[in-house]
Amino acid sequence: MSIDMSHTYTVEVGYDEFCGALAARDLKPLWKIAKQLMPEVPLPTTQAWLWKWDDVLPLAKRAGELITLERGGDRRVLALANPGLRGLPFTSTTLWGALQYLGPHESAPAHRHTPSAIRFVLTGSGVYTTVNGDACDMEPGDLILTPIWNWHDHNNRSDDPMVWFDGLDLPLLTALESIFFENHPDQLQPVDGHNRSEQGFAGVGLREMGISSPIAHSPLLRYRWGETERTLEALQRARGGPMVSLEFVNPLTGGPAVSTFACEMHRLSPGARTPTKRKTGSSVYVVFQGSGRSVINGVCFEWGPGDIFVTPSWASVDHEANLQADLFAISDRPVLQVLHLYREEELVERQEVSGTFVPLQGALRTAEVNRDEH
Amino acid sequence: MSIDMSHTYTVEVGYDEFCGALAARDLKPLWKIAKQLMPEVPLPTTQAWLWKWDDVLPLAKRAGELITLERGGDRRVLALANPGLRGLPFTSTTLWGALQYLGPHESAPAHRHTPSAIRFVLTGSGVYTTVNGDACDMEPGDLILTPIWNWHDHNNRSDDPMVWFDGLDLPLLTALESIFFENHPDQLQPVDGHNRSEQGFAGVGLREMGISSPIAHSPLLRYRWGETERTLEALQRARGGPMVSLEFVNPLTGGPAVSTFACEMHRLSPGARTPTKRKTGSSVYVVFQGSGRSVINGVCFEWGPGDIFVTPSWASVDHEANLQADLFAISDRPVLQVLHLYREEELVERQEVSGTFVPLQGALRTAEVNRDEH
Amino acid sequence: MSIDMSHTYTVEVGYDEFCGALAARDLKPLWKIAKQLMPEVPLPTTQAWLWKWDDVLPLAKRAGELITLERGGDRRVLALANPGLRGLPFTSTTLWGALQYLGPHESAPAHRHTPSAIRFVLTGSGVYTTVNGDACDMEPGDLILTPIWNWHDHNNRSDDPMVWFDGLDLPLLTALESIFFENHPDQLQPVDGHNRSEQGFAGVGLREMGISSPIAHSPLLRYRWGETERTLEALQRARGGPMVSLEFVNPLTGGPAVSTFACEMHRLSPGARTPTKRKTGSSVYVVFQGSGRSVINGVCFEWGPGDIFVTPSWASVDHEANLQADLFAISDRPVLQVLHLYREEELVERQEVSGTFVPLQGALRTAEVNRDEH
Amino acid sequence: MSIDMSHTYTVEVGYDEFCGALAARDLKPLWKIAKQLMPEVPLPTTQAWLWKWDDVLPLAKRAGELITLERGGDRRVLALANPGLRGLPFTSTTLWGALQYLGPHESAPAHRHTPSAIRFVLTGSGVYTTVNGDACDMEPGDLILTPIWNWHDHNNRSDDPMVWFDGLDLPLLTALESIFFENHPDQLQPVDGHNRSEQGFAGVGLREMGISSPIAHSPLLRYRWGETERTLEALQRARGGPMVSLEFVNPLTGGPAVSTFACEMHRLSPGARTPTKRKTGSSVYVVFQGSGRSVINGVCFEWGPGDIFVTPSWASVDHEANLQADLFAISDRPVLQVLHLYREEELVERQEVSGTFVPLQGALRTAEVNRDEH
Repeated sequence: MSIDMSHTYTVEVGYDEFCGALAARDLKPLWKIAKQLMPEVPLPTTQAWLWKWDDVLPLAKRAGELITLERGGDRRVLALANPGLRGLPFTSTTLWGALQYLGPHESAPAHRHTPSAIRFVLTGSGVYTTVNGDACDMEPGDLILTPIWNWHDHNNRSDDPMVWFDGLDLPLLTALESIFFENHPDQLQPVDGHNRSEQGFAGVGLREMGISSPIAHSPLLRYRWGETERTLEALQRARGGPMVSLEFVNPLTGGPAVSTFACEMHRLSPGARTPTKRKTGSSVYVVFQGSGRSVINGVCFEWGPGDIFVTPSWASVDHEANLQADLFAISDRPVLQVLHLYREEELVERQEVSGTFVPLQGALRTAEVNRDEH
Repeated sequence: MSIDMSHTYTVEVGYDEFCGALAARDLKPLWKIAKQLMPEVPLPTTQAWLWKWDDVLPLAKRAGELITLERGGDRRVLALANPGLRGLPFTSTTLWGALQYLGPHESAPAHRHTPSAIRFVLTGSGVYTTVNGDACDMEPGDLILTPIWNWHDHNNRSDDPMVWFDGLDLPLLTALESIFFENHPDQLQPVDGHNRSEQGFAGVGLREMGISSPIAHSPLLRYRWGETERTLEALQRARGGPMVSLEFVNPLTGGPAVSTFACEMHRLSPGARTPTKRKTGSSVYVVFQGSGRSVINGVCFEWGPGDIFVTPSWASVDHEANLQADLFAISDRPVLQVLHLYREEELVERQEVSGTFVPLQGALRTAEVNRDEH
Repeated sequence: MSIDMSHTYTVEVGYDEFCGALAARDLKPLWKIAKQLMPEVPLPTTQAWLWKWDDVLPLAKRAGELITLERGGDRRVLALANPGLRGLPFTSTTLWGALQYLGPHESAPAHRHTPSAIRFVLTGSGVYTTVNGDACDMEPGDLILTPIWNWHDHNNRSDDPMVWFDGLDLPLLTALESIFFENHPDQLQPVDGHNRSEQGFAGVGLREMGISSPIAHSPLLRYRWGETERTLEALQRARGGPMVSLEFVNPLTGGPAVSTFACEMHRLSPGARTPTKRKTGSSVYVVFQGSGRSVINGVCFEWGPGDIFVTPSWASVDHEANLQADLFAISDRPVLQVLHLYREEELVERQEVSGTFVPLQGALRTAEVNRDEH
Repeated sequence: MSIDMSHTYTVEVGYDEFCGALAARDLKPLWKIAKQLMPEVPLPTTQAWLWKWDDVLPLAKRAGELITLERGGDRRVLALANPGLRGLPFTSTTLWGALQYLGPHESAPAHRHTPSAIRFVLTGSGVYTTVNGDACDMEPGDLILTPIWNWHDHNNRSDDPMVWFDGLDLPLLTALESIFFENHPDQLQPVDGHNRSEQGFAGVGLREMGISSPIAHSPLLRYRWGETERTLEALQRARGGPMVSLEFVNPLTGGPAVSTFACEMHRLSPGARTPTKRKTGSSVYVVFQGSGRSVINGVCFEWGPGDIFVTPSWASVDHEANLQADLFAISDRPVLQVLHLYREEELVERQEVSGTFVPLQGALRTAEVNRDEH
């Protein structure tokens, strides 16, 4: 019994009725939407955007007073919702960026999920995140991994709150319909030791014999700021130029620390502008220290400590610091690379600046858009 | 100049005003949406759905009369739009499935794009698709690749129309904001030869010395039905059971024919039901010949030649043929595997059947939904 | 307790006594042997050599009469011993080539070993080799794998003898001191089926879903001559030129059929000489049909059906057929490639022919050398 | 023209004449040598052996007086010649171990070769090895790479001699007939900078963006003792037990520092014996500090600072320190692993000690053997 075409009649309908018949049968004609679907260069819905530390922090603090951490409201997280993404709580189509606030002596209960998360500590001290039994201390500038399907809880033993940046692949895993989640049977998991993942990684290029890497992520779960800073300084001395960049990788494979996004640190030397580049895929930048500005598709984004901004796919981007600046970033580059979709290029000339981003205007516009949708 | 927390005031606002302030600053509180964002198992927006050949073909034919192939309307394609995807012309969140109709003596002009496409021929003859200068003949059951950034045009030299199934990674590349598109300078590209990609692939496990594979896809661009059928028969003899399955791969690497989705062929022997399985990621099945039914999350989908159906992520699925059936399928499995997100399991007991899919109802419901949105 | 240099005296001896003291302490001074150890280009001990079918076959037949196959003398094998290798029974420093003779209704008992072997059938019929329970039929031109640590025995069910070429990595594994060997508890292993490894490999680029490759070798154990010949013909049509070449590979990975050496087939069209090339590593060529000559480092080697010759590392080599010729070959190229030691180049001009290889002279010389050693 | 068997006569000769005919035609019968060629477990020609620092150093010093460094005698190297290898200057069938002596203010001229070398510094200071323009400083305990085909020269700027251990893959590359060698046009190559390879490798798991690894070896050319020691201490604290072990790896891939052998460092805590293990492949151990003994196939080898010993393939080996000891080692494991030949196992019971190695006896015996051969 094979496909038969001979008996089929043609429906004798006019164009309008034809279009209605398509809709009624869950069909869409390509010819009406081809140019939107297949633009000549990426036409991202992700918008270049910036969130000011001074706008976000007071709200995070207020959340600390209004919201308690209990089952069902596990985490006190403010997601950076890109206004281009039609109300979705995502920072780009692939990346989730958020600020998480953990009050003094609070704990966020243990769970695990297939989305991988990283925590980049902005301010606070005396906190640890337990990852599969390993209590990883968190200090400003540290990067902590809570990768795919690893149990994790957060614990603040100090009298001060901590605020960190959360980076997740949640939008990508939503698109891939691959999210699993499980609460730990206990409120907090037992702690087997402290900073155990760092054992045996005391020297570059030295690998403990007989160990192998977890399949999807780095065995090293804490990347201390001291090591990062020392490497940035060494690169600065060796390479010079307006910017040096490093990636946090799995020391046993050289691959990305988590499979689904890159974790990077960029140091900008003051007074020089980087060349203008564009690349496929989005990045979320977190200003750890220093100040400056980034030009994204001709629009100038001014930033200082704690500010966060996002660059869309194929946007023209350059950076310039007033004061030496360290920018932590996450990017979906590893996904694009493994699928052979990554492209990058440096523009021959630096882009011109045609305007300046004003967050308030953006905020207003978003509020309006949201209002329209409800 | 580092992140400063000490001076920050708390905004003395009530909960409602607090929520408004978040919205105004493009922030979303996680605690209200955590369960939706991180469900215990995948909660796909993709719906199980089926498109009947007898519904689609008359519309394809009518499109052949109403729509001409010219620049700006390059392809006569009816996309299978999943009603779960809020009006998007996508079959699942990662996969594009469509029927393409090429009239007698028509040509679809040459272009290239980063989305990879495959063509699985349903009916017709005497057509070839030129891929980077190689004219690949198309006959029923053949699989033709037009992979990432390869020039391609379609040419019908016969007096009959051809209808084929189009499979693309377009939804994934939309999410990854990585779509580039380019029209060829000429209406049709020059033909350097016919079926050249098959040269040197006349025997299994025999590799021409000195050649290497393209980086992102198979060098073999045409997989003839005769080879596929012979392999299905061999597997059927060797393995027995209700279903045998094969994947179309790059003969030089064993990897998927294109990087971003799998191409598969499944043969069902009549009279036996397959075990019930579920897996992460979606699949689109095209019935090439035979008839039977598939149970998807307890709902029975009856199918015959030319019908197409989609299974969402983590859906419980089993199949049963009345008449020996060959199902071509595409799936996003390679993406999930390379990101370490692929899971599959066989249920201990076969699922019960609780209802039957009625396309008309679906169509009606979709029409209503569409009406509401406009 | 660290290395101490301060107290050490210098031995006040003259040069001769100094050299003697080195020898007495198992030390060798580099400066006397540096040029031999590190020549500017490879200085192989492997010599270009050729064994004539008409010389070897009568001896193989006589071996069939004189030697019975029993434990302790498992295989009736005549190894091609390169006269450059100081009495070792190896064809090159990495490759073992031999002729094996299996008489009518004989069986060679079951064993396994870490050296991988391939069998290329020269003449005979009605024989099968059982590999881990899979009885692989052997016909002229077939390539049969008995890879690393796979049980294997050979069984002749016909009234005629069979002669095949044995290719092994035995010299390499001897150098790597990695040889394990085990006799099967039974004289012959049980047969689970015939030619089972070929099941599911009926079409190029088609992979049975759910199977994975053995780690060190191809899952396909028999490469039939028919497939090989058809592919050679297709390549000949497509590429033209004096020679087309293919490699036998693992269809699931594209890698070599066994890890430690390549199996190749070269078809020479009559009347044209190939360009002169040289490469690191040695090759052993077996003339399956046709006749012609190869020039190796300026010496002409005439060959016909059943003749076998070896080319040393970095030798200048070209080939020319009188009658269309098919040359099976093994080579250590995969080892060199995986260690990043492989180099090859084509000489700008074809090498001149300065002489002709005369086997008898070689044989005489070898006999003398052997005599000197005993 | 195919292989013909029908016309062939059998040679009517007796067994002795038959054997002679084989020898005359460069054929070896397998049945006489099968057990030697294919032993049940590896039957290494490499012998367990030990070279005493107190024996070797005076000769190295004397060589410093007798031998000058000039073209034609480029390096003042004493190779550790394993007495099992029939006069070859190799430490095992795959590894070359040697001591190199560089006098005050001497330079060893620039060259390059396909054999990869490592230098492990035993004593001295103020020396640098220039590798492709990068002057790598050498201090005790440092590991310096001069990998495949990299230009290198050694320069002593101090008033004291330096002695280091040379590890090379020379025996393996000899067997693979893949040695190329070239003298640099100048006596010494120009120096572009000092310790440049270390730039950007200041932190574990931090990778400079935009760089890629050389294909066959680590980009890091100097592994400082300080980093090694710190990692050994961290492992000792974390793991406890009689021995902790690390491997020197390419920080960009996690693979071995050079492709063809492993570089390892083992720290033994005093007073406890390691479990008895055996593995395929050989290792050469260099005692950097501390003292103790190793049991190899039941024979006890006592060692102290500067002593060097070799373990053959599949030897039963355990170690025990009197004083905390650091043993540098090279091993051919990466080659065996990539060819799927690596096996290791821990014996259920520790081996018994049946005797003690006495170097003098060994030396005497070797001298006799050498005398016999000449």
